[in-house]
Amino acid sequence: MTMGTQTPADVPRGLAGVVVTETELGDVRGREGFYHYRQYSAVELAHSRTFEDVWHLMFFGELPDAAGRAAFLAETAELRGLPPDVAAVLPAVARSSALSGPLAGLRTALSLLGASAGLRPLYDIAPDRRRAEALAACAAVPTLLTALYRLGTGQEPIPPRADLPYAANYLYMLTGTEPDPVRARAVERYLISTIDHGFNASTFTARVIASTGADLAACLVGAVGALSGPLHGGAPSRALDTLDAIGTPENIDPWVRERVLAGDRIMGFGHAVYRTEDPRSRMLREIAQDLGGSRVAFAVEVERQVEAILAELKPGRELHTNVEFYAGVVMELCGLPREMFTPTFCAARVVGWSANILEQAQESKIIRPAARYVGPPPPQPVPPA
Amino acid sequence: MTMGTQTPADVPRGLAGVVVTETELGDVRGREGFYHYRQYSAVELAHSRTFEDVWHLMFFGELPDAAGRAAFLAETAELRGLPPDVAAVLPAVARSSALSGPLAGLRTALSLLGASAGLRPLYDIAPDRRRAEALAACAAVPTLLTALYRLGTGQEPIPPRADLPYAANYLYMLTGTEPDPVRARAVERYLISTIDHGFNASTFTARVIASTGADLAACLVGAVGALSGPLHGGAPSRALDTLDAIGTPENIDPWVRERVLAGDRIMGFGHAVYRTEDPRSRMLREIAQDLGGSRVAFAVEVERQVEAILAELKPGRELHTNVEFYAGVVMELCGLPREMFTPTFCAARVVGWSANILEQAQESKIIRPAARYVGPPPPQPVPPA
Repeated sequence: MTMGTQTPADVPRGLAGVVVTETELGDVRGREGFYHYRQYSAVELAHSRTFEDVWHLMFFGELPDAAGRAAFLAETAELRGLPPDVAAVLPAVARSSALSGPLAGLRTALSLLGASAGLRPLYDIAPDRRRAEALAACAAVPTLLTALYRLGTGQEPIPPRADLPYAANYLYMLTGTEPDPVRARAVERYLISTIDHGFNASTFTARVIASTGADLAACLVGAVGALSGPLHGGAPSRALDTLDAIGTPENIDPWVRERVLAGDRIMGFGHAVYRTEDPRSRMLREIAQDLGGSRVAFAVEVERQVEAILAELKPGRELHTNVEFYAGVVMELCGLPREMFTPTFCAARVVGWSANILEQAQESKIIRPAARYVGPPPPQPVPPA
Repeated sequence: MTMGTQTPADVPRGLAGVVVTETELGDVRGREGFYHYRQYSAVELAHSRTFEDVWHLMFFGELPDAAGRAAFLAETAELRGLPPDVAAVLPAVARSSALSGPLAGLRTALSLLGASAGLRPLYDIAPDRRRAEALAACAAVPTLLTALYRLGTGQEPIPPRADLPYAANYLYMLTGTEPDPVRARAVERYLISTIDHGFNASTFTARVIASTGADLAACLVGAVGALSGPLHGGAPSRALDTLDAIGTPENIDPWVRERVLAGDRIMGFGHAVYRTEDPRSRMLREIAQDLGGSRVAFAVEVERQVEAILAELKPGRELHTNVEFYAGVVMELCGLPREMFTPTFCAARVVGWSANILEQAQESKIIRPAARYVGPPPPQPVPPA
C-alpha cells in the first residue's frame, strides 16, 4: 500500500525485532535466559504462586492477597461451565475435528462460545466489561478442551468442579479423577510458566485483530489459529517421540550423531530467542526430577549427551533443550495424553493472549502495515473476455 | 522481546507504511485514486470480467480464456455444497450467533468446515493442494453465509445451483429466486471490486497466521475476525442509516451542517488511504445510477451537498464518499438485507485473503515483531503468598 508516508527501507524480514507496541505485561531477555510477567520473574512466580495469582497479576497488574486470591478463585471457578447451546454442539465439533486436531476443535468451540455470549466489539465496551468477557473465556477453555478430548475418544465430558483450582480441575475434567497434589502442582507450575512469553506470533495475531476493535472471541480464535502453526506452537510431543526413537541409553550417542551429521534438527533442542539455557526448560527439568522415575533419568541423560555432541559437532552454537523437551516429560508423568500437550499449552496461553488483548484495546489505533508490489507494472489493458 | 538485533527506533505507530512483505497480488495508489489486481486496474476488471475470471487471476496469475473460464466456473460451482456434518450444525451456529452477528457465525462455520475437510498445515502440503483447499473454502463461503442468514430468519437454507455463476448463485441462495441479470451483474461488479484492496488489517492477519504454517481455515477465520472489527470492516449499512436519518432533500443542508459543526463524522465519507475520490465509490455510483430510482437520486444529492459543505467548513481536506456509501445503495437496490452487507463484502474478500495466504505460504518465515516493555523494572522479589 503506497501511503502518504515514506516507507522505511530496511525493516528486517518477518518484522524480526521491529517494535510494534509498548507493553507492561512482560518481556524475554534472550541473552540472559530470563523472562518476566510484569515486574516479576516468571519462573519465580511459577515456584511460589498459584495459576490464579498469576492470572490476576496479568489481568489486574498486581498479585492478590489471601482474601483476593480466594475471591478470584471463586469468581473464575463459577465461570467454568458451558452454556447449554454450546455444550450441545460440542459432540459435532469433536467429530468434525477428528482429522485437523484438537486446536481446530477449540478454534470452532471458542468462536461459538463467544458468539453465544453475545460478545461486543472491544472498542464499544468499557474496560470492566472487556475484562469480564476475558475472564469468562479463559475460565471456559479447559472445559472446552477436555470436553472435546473426551468426546473425541468416545467418553462423556466431565463437568468442572468449582472446589478445585484451575490446574487440578483441568486434570480432573480430563480423567474424571481428582489428581494427586504433586502432579496437580507440577502441571500448575508448567501452566504458569506458559502464560506469556514475549511478543510471539499468536500474541501478535491477537493484538492485530484487537486493533480493529473486533470482539474478544475474534482475537482469541485468531491466536489459536496462529498457535496451531508448526513454526509457532511446535509440538511438545515431538520431544517424547525423540526419546522413544532413541529407546535405550546405549543408543543415544549413535542416534544423535547420525541425525546431527545428516543435518537434521533434534526435536526439543534450540530456541529462536534464548542464547543460553531456556529458563522454562531448567524449571521443568527440576519439576520432572522431583517427580522422578526412569523416564526422567533417561531424558536427563539424553539432554547431557545431545548437548555434548552438539558442542563437539557444532562448536560455537549454543544449543540447549527448549521448553518442549521437559514439558513433554512432565506432562507425560502427570498423565496427559500426547495429543493434549499443545492444547494444554493453550489452556495457559489464553490468559496471556487475553491480557494482551485487554492492553491493546486501550489503544484505538489499527495495526496495518504495508506490502511492496513487485509484479508487472499496472495498468495493463484488460484483454477482452 | 529483546532480540539479538537492534530495534529500529522510529517505526510509525500501527506499523503504518512499514513494508512487511512483497506481493504480486496488487496495490493501492492512494494519491492517484487507483488500485489494481496484479497488473490490471481493479475497476476495469469489474467492468469487463466475471467474478470467476478475477478469482482465477488472483489464484493463478492470469485471466482465463473462454475455455478456461467455463472449466473454472464448473470446477468451483461443484465445490459450493456443504458436507452433511457441517450443514447439520449450522442451525445451532445460527442460533448462537444471533447476538454477535453474521460474521461471528461465519467465523464458527468456516472453522468447522476447515476442520471437517481435514485441512493440513500450509507448509506440510504442496502448492496444488493448498490451492485446491482454498478454492473449496471460497466456493463454500456464500453457501455458509446465506444458510446462516436464512436459518437466523427462520427460513430453510437453499442449496446452491451449479448452473449459476458465483454472484447470481449467491443472490439465489439468499432469496430463493433467480435474480434478474442486471441486479446479478451489479452485485458481481461490486464483489469484483472488493476482492482485494492493498494490505488491509484482515489480509495482514491472514498472512501472519499463514506465516506460522497453520492451516488455511486458521488463516481465514482470523481474517474474518479482523474484518468484524469496526475500525476495519466498517458497516456499509451505516451510510444508508445516514440517508434514512436525513430523510428529505430539504433536510440535507441543515442535517449535515449540524453534524459537521459538532465534529461528528458523516458515515460513508473519508478514507484512510485515498486522497482523491475512491475509485470504488465512483464505479458504484455509476452502477447505482444505471439501476436508477429516487433513492439513487437522493444519494447523489446528499453526496453533492456533503462534499460542498465539507469543502466550505473543512477547507483543504479532501473528503469524498468512500466505498461504503454507494455500496450500501447498490446492495439495497439489489435486494440484499442490511445485515448482509458486510457478509457480502466478505464473500468477495475471501478470495483476496486466500490469494494472499497462498502467496505467503511460498515463504517459510514467521512474521513475528517485537514489543517494548515499559512497566516497572524486573525482577522485583515476588511477595510471599
